[in-house]
Amino acid sequence: MTELEQQLAFIIEIDKLKAVYRQTTVKEDKDRHENSAEHSWHITLTAQLLQGYAEQPINMTRVIKMLLIHDVIEIDAGDLFAFAETKDHEQQAIKEQKAAHRLFGLLPKAQFEEYQTLWLEFEAADTNDAQFAKSMDRILPLVQNMNNQGGSWAKHKISQSQVLVRNKHLQTIAPKLWQYVVAQTELAVTKGWLL
Amino acid sequence: MTELEQQLAFIIEIDKLKAVYRQTTVKEDKDRHENSAEHSWHITLTAQLLQGYAEQPINMTRVIKMLLIHDVIEIDAGDLFAFAETKDHEQQAIKEQKAAHRLFGLLPKAQFEEYQTLWLEFEAADTNDAQFAKSMDRILPLVQNMNNQGGSWAKHKISQSQVLVRNKHLQTIAPKLWQYVVAQTELAVTKGWLL
Repeated sequence: MTELEQQLAFIIEIDKLKAVYRQTTVKEDKDRHENSAEHSWHITLTAQLLQGYAEQPINMTRVIKMLLIHDVIEIDAGDLFAFAETKDHEQQAIKEQKAAHRLFGLLPKAQFEEYQTLWLEFEAADTNDAQFAKSMDRILPLVQNMNNQGGSWAKHKISQSQVLVRNKHLQTIAPKLWQYVVAQTELAVTKGWLL
Repeated sequence: MTELEQQLAFIIEIDKLKAVYRQTTVKEDKDRHENSAEHSWHITLTAQLLQGYAEQPINMTRVIKMLLIHDVIEIDAGDLFAFAETKDHEQQAIKEQKAAHRLFGLLPKAQFEEYQTLWLEFEAADTNDAQFAKSMDRILPLVQNMNNQGGSWAKHKISQSQVLVRNKHLQTIAPKLWQYVVAQTELAVTKGWLL
């Protein structure tokens, strides 16, 4: 196979991400479940629009690469609800490792290594770039749920503290967005959308 | 409204792109129609993977910005099939201008101007960045249709020359991809997927 054939095989394979559905729903499309491909577009654009709130140095080229590919592993591993049990998250992590190997492995060697490394960095969330990327992946469902009467939170009886823990990276990476998240979760409690 | 409120209003508004459906179908999801949000993700990642084929200087940060926002105007203007009549394309262009003004106008002034300008540059396709971005938007449906027995081509009786005209920017921007497109359209003719 030529490099181009390998790249096109990957491009065709990832079409399957359009069939992986998440807990969040699309209010404007009869409240159907959102898929991970359209979600990936939405957070990548969100990151671009909100990059000015980062108060630590970030490299947007890397952030965007991470966000565009972070969910691709769900093609094999499926989407696990953010607030699932810890043991489910541990099993999921093993499935995702295998998925990353198979999926990024379709690419030519240099791109395989680049994307595999970026995905691991995103998962570990130890760098500024990964923390900013992950924060975007977490603030967007909050914005969507607040715009949809609690959305997946209300349905699954999620608490304010669970949402705050999930958005914790914002405290250091983008404090103004953290303040926004805290205020929104307080509002959600008064509305009965969060416990 | 604060700048953050304006940005979030835009982020919520563009959720509607997930409800704009295109002619292309998603083979892996019961052949349902593809929406413009997931398509935007797919071409942005495609551009990133295939950037090495550009033989003219391109700025990937700008290419990616264009691709992430190029379809947002469809929220108001709808998606017009690529191979529609010329007069329909002219009417569509007027609707899209208005849509760009309303939608990007939700953003703070500096971002409004940035995205409006990028979108106009993409539409005009006079720069390397816009030509590479547009080429990605056009080669991906070809890859999808070739992987789906002709897909939207077969359904709408499209000819090889129409597809070649649509992909013409590749000739100068990425000649190796142009060779690929020519070969694929020849194969599509022998299969009866293109006239």
